[in-house]
Amino acid sequence: MTDAEWYRAACPGPCPAKAKEAEERQASLTKPPGSLGVLERLAIRLSGLQQTGRPKADKVAILLFAGDHGVTAQGVSPYPSEVTVQMLQNFTRGGAAISVLARELNASLEVVDAGSLAEAALDRVVTDKPRHGTRDFSLEPALTCDELNHGLAAGRRAVERTLPAAPHVLVLGEMGIGNTTSAAAVSAALLKIAPLEIVGAGAGLDDEGIRRKAGVISGALERHGLTEGDADPLTVLEFVGGLEIAALAGAMIAAAQSRTPVLVDGFIVTAAALAAVRINPSCRDWLIFSHRSFERGHQIVLQALEAEPLLDLRLRLGEGSGAALAVPLLRLACALHSNMATFEEASVSGPC
Amino acid sequence: MTDAEWYRAACPGPCPAKAKEAEERQASLTKPPGSLGVLERLAIRLSGLQQTGRPKADKVAILLFAGDHGVTAQGVSPYPSEVTVQMLQNFTRGGAAISVLARELNASLEVVDAGSLAEAALDRVVTDKPRHGTRDFSLEPALTCDELNHGLAAGRRAVERTLPAAPHVLVLGEMGIGNTTSAAAVSAALLKIAPLEIVGAGAGLDDEGIRRKAGVISGALERHGLTEGDADPLTVLEFVGGLEIAALAGAMIAAAQSRTPVLVDGFIVTAAALAAVRINPSCRDWLIFSHRSFERGHQIVLQALEAEPLLDLRLRLGEGSGAALAVPLLRLACALHSNMATFEEASVSGPC
Repeated sequence: MTDAEWYRAACPGPCPAKAKEAEERQASLTKPPGSLGVLERLAIRLSGLQQTGRPKADKVAILLFAGDHGVTAQGVSPYPSEVTVQMLQNFTRGGAAISVLARELNASLEVVDAGSLAEAALDRVVTDKPRHGTRDFSLEPALTCDELNHGLAAGRRAVERTLPAAPHVLVLGEMGIGNTTSAAAVSAALLKIAPLEIVGAGAGLDDEGIRRKAGVISGALERHGLTEGDADPLTVLEFVGGLEIAALAGAMIAAAQSRTPVLVDGFIVTAAALAAVRINPSCRDWLIFSHRSFERGHQIVLQALEAEPLLDLRLRLGEGSGAALAVPLLRLACALHSNMATFEEASVSGPC
Repeated sequence: MTDAEWYRAACPGPCPAKAKEAEERQASLTKPPGSLGVLERLAIRLSGLQQTGRPKADKVAILLFAGDHGVTAQGVSPYPSEVTVQMLQNFTRGGAAISVLARELNASLEVVDAGSLAEAALDRVVTDKPRHGTRDFSLEPALTCDELNHGLAAGRRAVERTLPAAPHVLVLGEMGIGNTTSAAAVSAALLKIAPLEIVGAGAGLDDEGIRRKAGVISGALERHGLTEGDADPLTVLEFVGGLEIAALAGAMIAAAQSRTPVLVDGFIVTAAALAAVRINPSCRDWLIFSHRSFERGHQIVLQALEAEPLLDLRLRLGEGSGAALAVPLLRLACALHSNMATFEEASVSGPC
């Protein structure tokens, strides 16, 4: 393994002793055993990941990666590509959904231009990109090997910038007109599923648009030889991926390598998670799936990852918004775990 | 209608103009239309209920009603009845799940002893009860008509105590060993469903315990003539209800009459909601269903109320804990609605 292949280095596992300690504490708290359901398992899991008897989700860092997609030339999105850059400015000016959520949650928000069409660096946006947008993957590979490596490393660099603040949890989000098309292509290639099964409305396509989008992906997978056999995840990202998707995958692996739990957002971030887990299966433990989105393919990719998300609110926005919405559940799960009284402390009787 | 029948007075409806204004604002915000899913509908609904273009869920009042149940003599719960009073003290001393959640959410918490077995008033608990626990409904009616009226009015009085602080939302919770048995009996009688279909594990019964519990309820419904024909909800509450369930139903109607939205918790509060809606259908608009619990009958009662809850976390604790856990979603839905930029403000392009 060369340093260029940093993403293959094993991620540490959760601490079994702390997870067991947390499980015992949950059983001692003044409630019927198991009655806090998913929140109990969440507190136990965070205890193991954070190696502590008192897990926390107070300090949250949001990383938002943006990229543009050459495949938009095929009419796969109802919005023009300019919207990616316009939204980058909306993020930093505080008007986007994720900006509002970051403020309400008292979370940091860093916006990374991992590959948008912007010619110049944008105010308060970190620019870390090897090119402006991907190539149209219906005609040629979206990225070269070097460009893909730049994308993966951009994700790692962003995670490294958050580490001095020692965030308890990382929220990962994305923006990129056309990126549900790339995410569907990556997922279809990795899972060997027909594009029509996994393609959804994205930002708002009608049924005819969805069929066209699926047709574009089918043609691309044929052209790149991705319809049969075991697909190498790096090859898939090169041929049909995106720079923000590569950065997300790199960020997840880097976060796991540095013991930071990640809240995974919707379809695009989950497709990146699938790629990350295929590249480096040891990162899977660190991924907490926040929500089941309304985008059709999301459920398929969640199932492939054996993920049971926390929320199901018919969201289909992206930006990390669903992951941010799950932050209060993590915080409250931690508060309940740490601050409830035990049966002994409260002198409450157990079962007869 | 006499004043004694205050609970029949019509509740006001939501404001259609404010709901429409909110719907238009949602369509103007920088996101694909509908992409915030359930949160958009929540903000629109709260706008109509609160009669404002900028709904809020900052000020939250939690009311927790406790009661004991004579039917516990039939072995329907794994916990002894003493636990109700022990938990009342745990609530006010800060060690229970709802105490922790109230602190984290900066919500007020009032605990009302609506009918526990406690002989004396408990420290920092409002005592408002006509008797100590209900009669064993497998042998005789649980309550007299006067006792039921006291229970309903105790709920109204508790709501009236919250009004000076003008809460944006009310969270209702309960505590009472044996109260899933009463809630299942009330629901089975109102919905004409076989008890075995609606009875669950409560605080932790095994399969044999569940069959026994269903048998106790079936026998009681037969004895009280509640198995056939349209059941009068007040009669059902008298025969097989509980004082905390009556207080919850009274609180919901009183909250709706005074224009305060209510976050409904799990199985027991939802059974009380069913009774409240049967007594006074105009209160339905004011009920926001917070979560789908793991208790078997909950889904059946939710369906009967055409309710789509916000969360599904396999909770089965009660205390208002599931409703409290949904408060951040309301707050974030309101923040997104009020604070996101419009397409015009942010100079972001709409669909092509």
